[in-house]
Amino acid sequence: MLSRIRTVLIHNSHPGNIGASARALKNMGLSQLILVAPKEFPSKEAEARASNAQDILAKVKVYSTVEEALLGCSWVVGCSARQRKLSLPTFSPKEAASKIHQQFLSGNVVGEVAILYGNEKQGLSNEELALCSAQIIIPTVSEYSSLNLAQAVQIISYELFLTQFAVPKSENVLSEITDREIREDNTLPSFETLAEFYRELEKTLIDIEFLDPKKPGQMVPRLKRLFARAAIDKTELTLLRGMLTSMQKSMKNLNNK
Amino acid sequence: MLSRIRTVLIHNSHPGNIGASARALKNMGLSQLILVAPKEFPSKEAEARASNAQDILAKVKVYSTVEEALLGCSWVVGCSARQRKLSLPTFSPKEAASKIHQQFLSGNVVGEVAILYGNEKQGLSNEELALCSAQIIIPTVSEYSSLNLAQAVQIISYELFLTQFAVPKSENVLSEITDREIREDNTLPSFETLAEFYRELEKTLIDIEFLDPKKPGQMVPRLKRLFARAAIDKTELTLLRGMLTSMQKSMKNLNNK
Repeated sequence: MLSRIRTVLIHNSHPGNIGASARALKNMGLSQLILVAPKEFPSKEAEARASNAQDILAKVKVYSTVEEALLGCSWVVGCSARQRKLSLPTFSPKEAASKIHQQFLSGNVVGEVAILYGNEKQGLSNEELALCSAQIIIPTVSEYSSLNLAQAVQIISYELFLTQFAVPKSENVLSEITDREIREDNTLPSFETLAEFYRELEKTLIDIEFLDPKKPGQMVPRLKRLFARAAIDKTELTLLRGMLTSMQKSMKNLNNK
Repeated sequence: MLSRIRTVLIHNSHPGNIGASARALKNMGLSQLILVAPKEFPSKEAEARASNAQDILAKVKVYSTVEEALLGCSWVVGCSARQRKLSLPTFSPKEAASKIHQQFLSGNVVGEVAILYGNEKQGLSNEELALCSAQIIIPTVSEYSSLNLAQAVQIISYELFLTQFAVPKSENVLSEITDREIREDNTLPSFETLAEFYRELEKTLIDIEFLDPKKPGQMVPRLKRLFARAAIDKTELTLLRGMLTSMQKSMKNLNNK
């Protein structure tokens, strides 16, 4: 789906932004970068800023008019901070991304989708916006609404990328899984192993006279909660138990002196 | 709220990214840009790329160590594409933004929040990540997960800006509440208070001969990570420090026998 989305930069004046846009697209799984009458391309600066997205740069298509760049597109949307007099339906990046995906899924869009970005100074002209079915406005503070061109491309590509996965299931479930899965070797100790550790901990706290067994208060429950919340893994548990053992041993050695 | 969020660029090597980050912050209502040992700053290129965000550049603070940059922070999160072996809870930009806002709203964070971004080539080192309570991973295609630095700053700032307007009724909030409600006095200690605790902890581990200062290995980093991950609150910290003090006192008493 992302392969059917064209990012069209019109009258680009800073080639660095072409490179940075190529990289942003590649990070987010998009691939079609199209230039309309750029000031300078190919460009060394574009290559430098593209980093590992040279393949995207190599496939860039350059046209002299916007109309040529839009051949084969079924839906065109323009990215512009300015609200126009005769305005189009406006969407946030997330709404636009969702709309584009829906268009593809519904089969409404049989060709491709184009997202237009204007020149760095002027943005999209009214004539260019008139080619669009909708406008994307990136939310910003009101005092400074003009994003760098490649940053705008980045945000919109990011939302397009995310929308692919926007299955109507709880986000939380996913995040829970990633939350744990990344800690590979970190299998979690069993409940009974943990209970044993808590007993050792309690004993040590009494030995060092930090915990008064007659007035235990909330100390041990609090520590248990802390470790439970951290979901300590086996490696960490070994470390913590080793600490307690060392402590006990030190005390014994000193007592025997 | 956004004014209490620090964007910390560590070992920046391309001054253009400093300027582009300043602009991204200003677009999204953030204001604190902090540099740790940048290669070049002030810089003409940073000024050019900052465009109308010269005020943000003028207020940039430069430090030589990350630790200095974090003084006064109660919650630190690192932006890194790489998943680490010994890793932290990870959040998407949206989840992290939501978490940060909730921390502020709940009053748990009394100081400021810092978001760390590593060097352009290497990203955050393991030592830098060990200072964090969580990691932000920006979703990308798996083949090319490395975003340009300023683009990463842009996406995260965008999500922070958007989250302000998100009504606190999402499913996320629920999981947050269960996560935190158990803990009574949950304001988080400052970075410097935690650092002091870590020093005491290390000293005690050496005293009880659990830690060999000549071969420290991964023990202290592991423990720091555990406590950072748990985001221990002030009550818990008091408890843990009390434990160390009791331990030290017991050893001294025994030594004096």
